[in-house]
Parts: sequence; structure tokens; C-alpha cells
Amino acid sequence: MSEQIQPTLNDIRQAAERLKGIAVKTPLLRSVTLSEAFEAEIFLKPENLQRVGAFKFRGAYNRLCQLTKAEKARGVVAFSSGNHAQGVAAAAKILGIKATIVMPSDAPVMKRDNTLSYGAKVVEYDRETESREDIAQAIADEQGAVVVPAFEDFDVICGQGTVGLEIYEQGRETDAEFDMFFSPVGGGGLMSGCATALKSLNPTLQIIGVEPEGFDDVKRSLSAGEICSNSRHTGTICDALLTHAPGPLTLKIMQEYVDSIVTVNDAEVLIAVKYAWEKLKLVVEPGGAVTLAALLAGHLDVKGKTICLLLSGGNVDATTFARAISS
Amino acid sequence: MSEQIQPTLNDIRQAAERLKGIAVKTPLLRSVTLSEAFEAEIFLKPENLQRVGAFKFRGAYNRLCQLTKAEKARGVVAFSSGNHAQGVAAAAKILGIKATIVMPSDAPVMKRDNTLSYGAKVVEYDRETESREDIAQAIADEQGAVVVPAFEDFDVICGQGTVGLEIYEQGRETDAEFDMFFSPVGGGGLMSGCATALKSLNPTLQIIGVEPEGFDDVKRSLSAGEICSNSRHTGTICDALLTHAPGPLTLKIMQEYVDSIVTVNDAEVLIAVKYAWEKLKLVVEPGGAVTLAALLAGHLDVKGKTICLLLSGGNVDATTFARAISS
Repeated sequence: MSEQIQPTLNDIRQAAERLKGIAVKTPLLRSVTLSEAFEAEIFLKPENLQRVGAFKFRGAYNRLCQLTKAEKARGVVAFSSGNHAQGVAAAAKILGIKATIVMPSDAPVMKRDNTLSYGAKVVEYDRETESREDIAQAIADEQGAVVVPAFEDFDVICGQGTVGLEIYEQGRETDAEFDMFFSPVGGGGLMSGCATALKSLNPTLQIIGVEPEGFDDVKRSLSAGEICSNSRHTGTICDALLTHAPGPLTLKIMQEYVDSIVTVNDAEVLIAVKYAWEKLKLVVEPGGAVTLAALLAGHLDVKGKTICLLLSGGNVDATTFARAISS
Repeated sequence: MSEQIQPTLNDIRQAAERLKGIAVKTPLLRSVTLSEAFEAEIFLKPENLQRVGAFKFRGAYNRLCQLTKAEKARGVVAFSSGNHAQGVAAAAKILGIKATIVMPSDAPVMKRDNTLSYGAKVVEYDRETESREDIAQAIADEQGAVVVPAFEDFDVICGQGTVGLEIYEQGRETDAEFDMFFSPVGGGGLMSGCATALKSLNPTLQIIGVEPEGFDDVKRSLSAGEICSNSRHTGTICDALLTHAPGPLTLKIMQEYVDSIVTVNDAEVLIAVKYAWEKLKLVVEPGGAVTLAALLAGHLDVKGKTICLLLSGGNVDATTFARAISS
């Protein structure tokens, strides 16, 4: 992939204009329960309430709506474990574009079914033995379709960054001056977009990412100053955060804006999924609940602070969810 | 109970002032999924995101905060299957008042545990053989405590009515002019408060209540022009809507403002609980989901309309919830 330009706050503002009236402006919720329990002002940005049940719609739509007429006619192809798949499929449906999605055969059934429900064609691959990049590229070559990356893309990052812009604006409306912002981190598209928006608007804000234990490619990459990858392709309940490694662009942005990364294990994540169900009345998927997991597990020092936890998605199978809430 | 004054819009506005900064101003959410599926503009007012996971906190706090110093010192007593119990317990805790709650022995475990967690004393009774009114009155007589009714009370109705006031104001902020409003109906406290606020602000708004099949005391009362009661005390999954009958005050208000009542059965309610989980990413309890159940079951003619569905609570046991989402 050729070197890409780094987005600015202004680029994210333009993405917000494109998404206006199309993406859901998810609410910023102050949690009484969490605020009292942690002696802090704790706000949630529930992107599980976004179209397709995850923030991914934002970046996908921002990318697809800018395709040329000729590109739109040839269609798009994307590879994703689920949420990006749904985001691209839903955006393509709105814009009348044909979409092919390359999904791992072990993707959550709900994510696969939803992707199909938006009219996309789904091509399955084996996560352990096949390369989704190669499959997608072959489809792109054959059909002349545009590949829509899940995170390593200027327009995708700008779209995801609108979450951060909204957090800043909604925080101001409720007189909340944030000290800390926490986001799940997979490939870093959401984090780099949000961090660009939030740090540009408030340079003293602490920005902290959360990754699954054993899949801390971004933590290691930031520490090493170069791209480090995960050795495994399966083995965390957080399917939404299962990426090989950050890209050159997302890593560069995170190097500039992200203060630190913490990790959480599957047990901590399941507790957070249950807590969100029981106390917050929100359906959050494992990967979307890692920020809450880090808080509940006592990994975050937030006492006296005003903080925002981004809950990034809510697409989870019934069996996994029932297991979490019954434990 | 002596005859009570009927609340006005202005009384509800005063309740809103008392609740400001204490109750959660729950968001008004436009549902893309429902709007597209039903070719209508469909908004949700999720009171499951309220303190204690249900609207009941509003009425309880509005009642308790107006007690005299002497009354506060003697404490309060309430009877409730669960959500009113939690509302009174939580409001009492904030105000430093001792609370005793009379709960049926078959109340959902979560509701009972939460009530205890707010520091209230719980006294159990048998729904089939004992009178909760008598038990509560005995405690009130013994301790000099004030009985806080679940619905048949001026201040409780005004507190619940703040939900309606918010819906109107939030609708205006998003340029939504509602044609129809749907609310769950138990004893009618929520409905009569909301209907007073909404019909005063918009006299052409259609106001429709939803009750569980076989527990349609309000529907029959409105039809007969006098209080009709339910013959059974158990037998619906909607525990939050299990009331004996409306009171003279709530019935009078509903006679004035409510256009009609529809009913839903348990199977329809379970489908709605699952839909809210799968598509809306919200945890809604059976009784809180009856408006959605009526819509999904095709009982509501909403095509081309702008409507608001009130989701009144989200306190549901894991076993019931797991059953709903796994079906």
C-alpha cells in the first residue's frame, strides 16, 4: 500500500458533514452507577447503537460515498471478521453499490447473517490457512472492484474519527471536560481517527487504548517504534479486535497521539459484557467492552477524573452472550 | 385513599425541576432499523437507561424529596414487584431516608437484590394469599412511616410525567413532530403522567397504551367507564405490569387523555425482548418491551407516521433473558 496522507481535524469535520443525517449521532451517556462506583465522572459513547451495531459504518460510508461514478459501478470488496463487513455492506446498500465481503469461516453467525441481510455477497475463508488479502485482491482484479480497507485508509480513519468529534461536542454540551479517553484498539482505525480529533481539540487529554491480552500488537508496536504483529490469528473472545498488525498510517498517528495501551483478558471482558447488560442495560460485544473491562478490572486510575469510555460495538451471538450473563 | 388533585403540565414541569441533575435525562433515539422496516419515523425513549434501570426512580424521588423533615426521619414504606421498589430504595438512599419495601416472594431476583443494594429493608409476601397493602399499612402504622404508592399519587404521577415532557422537548430538538405515542400500562402512573404532559403540549397527538393479554384492567376500565380489576395475580411474563387495577386518579386522567389500549401476549413480548437485544442493542425487560412487541406483532398502524415507543425498564433475570435471546 502506498504511503497515505495523515488526516487532520478538518478532514474529520468534512467526514462528519458527509455522515450527517446518515450515520446515527449516538448519545453521550453519563453513567450514574459507574461514576458512583469509581468516584469519577464516567461517560459512555455507545457505538453499539450505531447503524449495523458498530462504529464501522462511519468509515465505510465516508469511503464509499466518495467513490467516482465509474468506481461505484464496478463495486467494492472488503475483508473483515464482521463489523467492517456489515459497515461496508450497509453503506454499499444505501449508495446502490455491489459489495463482496471476504469473511473468516468462524465469524460470529450474527455478523455473517447481517452482512448478507444488507444484500452483500459473502465469500468465506479459513483464518488459519488462507490469506484474506489475496482472496480480496483476486476479486478486485477480476471485477475491477475497489478494495475498502478496514482501517489503513485515509477516508476510513476520518469516518471513524467522527466518533471523537461527537464526543468532544457532546462533552461540551453537558459541561464535561474530559481528562481521559479510552478506546478499544484493533488495527487502530477508530483509535487514530478519534485521537486525531480529540487531541487536536484538547491537547491535554490523555488518550489510552485497550487491547486483548496476547493480541497487543499496537502496544508492542508503539513500544518498539515499528510495526509488530500478533503471532496468532485466533484465541481471544474479542473477535472484533483480531487484527494482524497496525498499518503504517494508523501506527504513525497513534505514535503521535496515544499516551498508552492497557490489556485485558477474556475473563475480564466477559465480566464487562455482563456488567453492561446488568447495570448499563446495553448490549456490548466482547471487543466493544474492553474499555469497560479495563475499568472494572481495576487497571485504570480514574478517581476524581472525568473520563469517556468508548463502547465500540454490540454484535454478539446469543450463545456467547447467554454465557456471559449467566456466569 | 382520599380523592386527589389531578396534575397539570405545570405540576410536571415543577417535578422536572426537582429531578434536574438527579434523574438521568435519557436520550431520545431514532431507530434506523425500525424506521426502515415499518416505513415510519420511529423513535425510542429508553427508560431502561434511567437510574435503577426503570422510569420508577422519577416518581419515587419526586415524592420523597417533598416529605417534611419529620416524615423523612420516620422513613418510608412501599410495596412493589420490583421497579418501584428499586426506585423508592434509590431515592431514599440519596435523601438519607430509611426505606422498607414489601415485595412478592416471586419477584425477579435482580430486582430484589438491587433493592437490597440501595440499603432498603425487604419484607416478602405471597402474591396469592397475602395483601401487600395490609402488610405495608401495618409497617406504616408501627413506624409512623409514609406509604409511597406505586402509581395512585399526585407526586408520583408528576415524576413519571417528566418522561413525557422530555420526549416532547427532545422531539422538538430533532424536528420530530410526533403523531403517536405508545407507553406500557400497569397501574397507569407512567401513562397518566406522560399523557398529561404530551397531550397538553400537543392536543392532536394520539396516545396509545399497551397491556399484557389477560391483564387488561385499564383497557376494560376505560371501556366500562369504571374501575375493573384483573382476576389473576400471576401469569404474565410482564411482572412490571402486574397490577390489580388502576386507581381513581390514574383512571380519570387516562379517560381524559388516552385514545386506546392494545394488548400483547407473552410470545410477542419475548420476540420484542430478543429484537431489542439483537437489533437495538438495548436490554429491555418483558414489561418494558410491550410497546415494541405491539409494533413487531403488527398490531399498530404506523406507516408514514412519526411515533415514539416508550421502553420503560430493563430489569430482567439472566435466565429469562437468555431464554428470550436463544429462542
